[in-house]
Amino acid sequence: MANNMDDEDKKKKTDTQELKNVKFLPFSSCMDPGFWNKLCQQKLNEYRLSEDAIPIKGYYCNYLAENLPSFLNIDHSAWDIDDDVGTKHYKVLGSLKILNTIEDFKNFNYTKHLEDEGRMIWSEVMTKGPFKDPSLLNRFSLVTFPNLKKFTFHYWCLFPSLCPNKKFTIEGHPVNVNDCFSLDKMQKFVENYDKFKNELLQHQQSKNSCCAFLIDENDMNVHPFSYIQSLNEEEKKDHKIMLGFADPSTANSKPGWSLRNLLVLLSTHCYDLLNGKVRVLCLRDRTSNGVRHISHSIVLNVCLVRIDPQSDCPNVIGWERNSKEQLGPRFLDLSSGMDPYNLSESAVDLNLKLMKWRLVPDLDLEVISNSRCLLLGSGTLGCNVARCLLGWGVRNITFVDNARVSYSNPVRQSLFNFSDCLDGGKPKVACAAASIKQIFPLANAVGINLFIPMPGHPIPGINISQLHDSTCQDITHLIELIRAHDVIFLLMDTRESRWLPTLLGRSMEKIVLNVALGFDSYLIMRHGVGFSEVTKSDGVEGAWKVVPGSQLGCYFCNDIFSPGNSHLDRSLDQQCTVTRLGVPYVAASLAVELLVSLLNHPLKGQASAEIVNESVDGLPDSKEVSILGAIPHQIRGFLSNFCNIMPVCRSFNMCTACSQPVLEAYKRDGIEFLVKSINEPSSLEELTGLTKLHTDTKDIKIEELSDNEVSD
Amino acid sequence: MANNMDDEDKKKKTDTQELKNVKFLPFSSCMDPGFWNKLCQQKLNEYRLSEDAIPIKGYYCNYLAENLPSFLNIDHSAWDIDDDVGTKHYKVLGSLKILNTIEDFKNFNYTKHLEDEGRMIWSEVMTKGPFKDPSLLNRFSLVTFPNLKKFTFHYWCLFPSLCPNKKFTIEGHPVNVNDCFSLDKMQKFVENYDKFKNELLQHQQSKNSCCAFLIDENDMNVHPFSYIQSLNEEEKKDHKIMLGFADPSTANSKPGWSLRNLLVLLSTHCYDLLNGKVRVLCLRDRTSNGVRHISHSIVLNVCLVRIDPQSDCPNVIGWERNSKEQLGPRFLDLSSGMDPYNLSESAVDLNLKLMKWRLVPDLDLEVISNSRCLLLGSGTLGCNVARCLLGWGVRNITFVDNARVSYSNPVRQSLFNFSDCLDGGKPKVACAAASIKQIFPLANAVGINLFIPMPGHPIPGINISQLHDSTCQDITHLIELIRAHDVIFLLMDTRESRWLPTLLGRSMEKIVLNVALGFDSYLIMRHGVGFSEVTKSDGVEGAWKVVPGSQLGCYFCNDIFSPGNSHLDRSLDQQCTVTRLGVPYVAASLAVELLVSLLNHPLKGQASAEIVNESVDGLPDSKEVSILGAIPHQIRGFLSNFCNIMPVCRSFNMCTACSQPVLEAYKRDGIEFLVKSINEPSSLEELTGLTKLHTDTKDIKIEELSDNEVSD
Ligand SMILES: [Zn+2]
Ligand SMILES: [Zn+2]
Repeated sequence: MANNMDDEDKKKKTDTQELKNVKFLPFSSCMDPGFWNKLCQQKLNEYRLSEDAIPIKGYYCNYLAENLPSFLNIDHSAWDIDDDVGTKHYKVLGSLKILNTIEDFKNFNYTKHLEDEGRMIWSEVMTKGPFKDPSLLNRFSLVTFPNLKKFTFHYWCLFPSLCPNKKFTIEGHPVNVNDCFSLDKMQKFVENYDKFKNELLQHQQSKNSCCAFLIDENDMNVHPFSYIQSLNEEEKKDHKIMLGFADPSTANSKPGWSLRNLLVLLSTHCYDLLNGKVRVLCLRDRTSNGVRHISHSIVLNVCLVRIDPQSDCPNVIGWERNSKEQLGPRFLDLSSGMDPYNLSESAVDLNLKLMKWRLVPDLDLEVISNSRCLLLGSGTLGCNVARCLLGWGVRNITFVDNARVSYSNPVRQSLFNFSDCLDGGKPKVACAAASIKQIFPLANAVGINLFIPMPGHPIPGINISQLHDSTCQDITHLIELIRAHDVIFLLMDTRESRWLPTLLGRSMEKIVLNVALGFDSYLIMRHGVGFSEVTKSDGVEGAWKVVPGSQLGCYFCNDIFSPGNSHLDRSLDQQCTVTRLGVPYVAASLAVELLVSLLNHPLKGQASAEIVNESVDGLPDSKEVSILGAIPHQIRGFLSNFCNIMPVCRSFNMCTACSQPVLEAYKRDGIEFLVKSINEPSSLEELTGLTKLHTDTKDIKIEELSDNEVSD
Repeated sequence: MANNMDDEDKKKKTDTQELKNVKFLPFSSCMDPGFWNKLCQQKLNEYRLSEDAIPIKGYYCNYLAENLPSFLNIDHSAWDIDDDVGTKHYKVLGSLKILNTIEDFKNFNYTKHLEDEGRMIWSEVMTKGPFKDPSLLNRFSLVTFPNLKKFTFHYWCLFPSLCPNKKFTIEGHPVNVNDCFSLDKMQKFVENYDKFKNELLQHQQSKNSCCAFLIDENDMNVHPFSYIQSLNEEEKKDHKIMLGFADPSTANSKPGWSLRNLLVLLSTHCYDLLNGKVRVLCLRDRTSNGVRHISHSIVLNVCLVRIDPQSDCPNVIGWERNSKEQLGPRFLDLSSGMDPYNLSESAVDLNLKLMKWRLVPDLDLEVISNSRCLLLGSGTLGCNVARCLLGWGVRNITFVDNARVSYSNPVRQSLFNFSDCLDGGKPKVACAAASIKQIFPLANAVGINLFIPMPGHPIPGINISQLHDSTCQDITHLIELIRAHDVIFLLMDTRESRWLPTLLGRSMEKIVLNVALGFDSYLIMRHGVGFSEVTKSDGVEGAWKVVPGSQLGCYFCNDIFSPGNSHLDRSLDQQCTVTRLGVPYVAASLAVELLVSLLNHPLKGQASAEIVNESVDGLPDSKEVSILGAIPHQIRGFLSNFCNIMPVCRSFNMCTACSQPVLEAYKRDGIEFLVKSINEPSSLEELTGLTKLHTDTKDIKIEELSDNEVSD
């Protein structure tokens, strides 16, 4: 009866008092840079273009100093949703939605997302599950567009809260806990609370539920939140039940945001039990100067709003305001704070992965980026091939050349500048390697100053007695280089210099890409790789146009095998300094693209080749394709009509560079065979029966010439 | 009789004396850097690849101090063969042979050249012309390979001298002139010599002949060299004739090289007259400390060698020795001494001119290099287009963009380095322009930071009241830019941004080259230029595939006109950040090559276009070509099969960018029409009746987004 009286009295009081709306301090999202970093990694390596919601966790605490924002922390551990957040933190589960473009982010339906998130809370309320685990009422959602190239982030956080039609009101003012309870009662509460919390923390299942609890004001006993369900009207009379929650708020007069949904839960299921009111302990559990105290906690007498559990989901609010206190997303620029090398690496990585994610899911980027590429020749072709490789993610690029940068180079050779020409010109290879590192510091670019030995061109300035040793040395160096690389690009400007690397590349089963230029035409050719029984194509219809990779010809097979093209070939290699500007650009890019397509074929260099024709829909009219399309044996292009043709030819059994007699002689006699072939080209002729590779030079004695060969 | 006795006596004496061979001091070529400079200019601008002998002149003097080499000077005036060389210099005519490659220089038939040059002297001897003009016996020849890129020169000088079977000998030792003549006689000689020389120098024809003369020892009178021909045996007895010549030698005991052929002339025609001997005054005419003296002159008694004028040409000698005193060419490196900017300019110039000289004589390099090019967009395409233009000699390049360099850019965008990405990234346009100047300092590269106004994309961050003015300003800026350039490249990554420059370019009759990229495909298109009556193609067979330049469509015509290609078009412009690496490289180069071919067509942008097919021999199968080949309307290429197709389409009469209603509205309403179209795209739709160019963006209020658009 006394209780009833008290209640009646109170009701009268409140009727006369002016009821104030409860003001809640919203959460402030606090994103650790580690979170964004991890997000970028996850997106690059796992989510890619998926926009599915990803479960993550955040946490808040109730020990923050006065006037700090009510932080909801999200850090690098956000993805480990089952992990503990520590005894002083309260876990909040959330969802992460990563959008792929700024347009998607702009056009995202934030209203619908809010409603969806609200409905999730409401369904929890309806199931009464939060009585057992009140943390189910705490949720957040993060919508973001991470610009992985720039390391900038657009994001917007939602802390969904259900809003009954009427607002929660408060009787009187929020009161400090010290003004409500005696010191004795306070101590008793703390003891009981710690005991209660420790018990819950023992068990994985109950851990999270300690964010809210009940207090019996009579004895300051602390009960789990679910305790309220076990009380019947009768029992309830013997208790003076109070709601307690770990309050993230730091404001004197405002409870934290997480109280909202707790009140909705009580309003929905316990309005009558509580007579429409609940006394709330907003527990703020601080430690300052080594002393723990809860004296900043406040107590509110909240008037509930009856909510019909059968009703529709109440309104939802909860989008965070931005720095201008407006409802809108936030923007974060982390680029300055991050290691620029990492930024560069991630940005380049992303560009490539986007290609895979958006268009060619089976694209093997690693087989490309892991290819160690040897570029023989660092002129117009070498520079552009290197740039294209770099763009494809290739890290290991070795330049070989023995020329210096001259004044005519920079406008055509994209790795050199005017300043590289001064004082006689820097060595091209060192200059090119340095340039690559200026473009992408993490690239492993190396320059090797080496004259590639070639038949009929003994190393200049060397007398006969030194000749053998010197040639040996250069050959050995070239062998080592070819062995240490996966792909060999022949980008020189003389025919003869291609002989040795062609032979060595074939012998070591490397992918060899040969590029030769004419005035307005170019030839790109992948040499045959691997060995197999030569099959006779006779009698098999169409076999003439499909050749296994192991039987594809090399640059030196070509003339003889296709005499009809000899005019073209003669024009190549002799005019490299007077090509139309586009020729080396187009040829270099197509050579790299052919490589990339080839590397994406299961057989790599051993993939068959056939003549490719254009088809109406722009797709290659060929069965011999990789996931990227055609992998022709040769691409011969003409700027005079902007057309490419794609002949295919078998290796020639008398070829001076790739035929069996030559390869066997090398296998048998090793470097000695090579030295002999280079110093006495006639020996090579004898072996294969072919005409000389070189034209004799008159033996007029001209000492100064040798060091000043024209090169470009 | 007395004379006879004397002669007999002398003969006896000489018989008993040991006769020594006359040693001649050879000429040393002395090439002024100005000569090489002029040679480079002449080769670049006039001779080009011609190897014809070019007449030049050199000169020597007889006043050099003792022990200096006997210089034959060749300087920048060498080409002015008729010009005076000054009264103290003696002109020598010569020939200049410029070889084009180091191989040509190595393989040059120096022996034959020597013989040829000798025969020229011999034919002069036989004609007796040198009696009238003894300078005809002095000749030189210069064979050179000038490396115009490096400003290094290989050269070899020849001073051809005929050698009789027996050598010229000398009686006794060379004697100083002071020991031969009294002071009185010497003074008399000088007076007579000066008078003689001055008379000859009065007349152009006789000027050069003063290099040799005759002296009557009796009275020290000086006679022209031809005087000897007028003497008969009788007259000769009354004179004591002595040969005088301006001696370039500085050696005490050796006459200069120019005496050789004089002695051959006398040996051939005057052996008997002179009784096989001639006394020679090697006149060295110096001035030291303001005093003129000839006291270093020497006198020789030379025994001639009888030469039958009917005989074959005697042996010839005369190749100069090099710095190692060996018979071989010399090498000169002028690169360090020259202005590097000039070196760079000449080297670049040469590369282009070689193309013209060797392969396309009618190539108009100036129409290319004089083109002022506006590059709208400074990403992957913009960088590569600029590089190709630079290589073609284009000096005026203006970049327009409003983005900053980001970390993913450098590996794809060939004008940027890693360091350009730091601290938020440099503005692309400034960075690109600076990079161009680092490549070629004489280029005029400018960067304009400008957002290109586009329909449906009002300038961000601007409220309605500012909008009009701001749009106006940007449009005005773009109009000025397009007006100030000849060629407009559209290299942006959005479709909408191409609208305004397409319209303006068409309106101002500029060449507009539009490049758009897909993942592994590209489109290069030249927009129509000029205005003409639209001709109906109906009924004319084949007319569908040839379209006059004025009727060619633009990028916005295309979709509608060729709905079958809409899939391709949609894929363009939307994925530029995820193209295969080769796509922008190939597309940029082909766009520049298309421009270059187009500029070499007499009609330039107004040239007709037709569908181009490849033909068997690689030449374009089209009548509508420039001297460089095909000038298709569009090039659509596919890396999936390495093929290009070349569709052609007429302008569409409802095109939003190039149709008559649009162009007329702009002509009528000027900028106001453009502003309206951009700020209210629906007005454009109404005008043309076409669907919107843009997709609406949701109007959610997102302040921070605007400044952080994704771009690449
Ligand atoms: Zn071969
Ligand atoms: Zn159009």
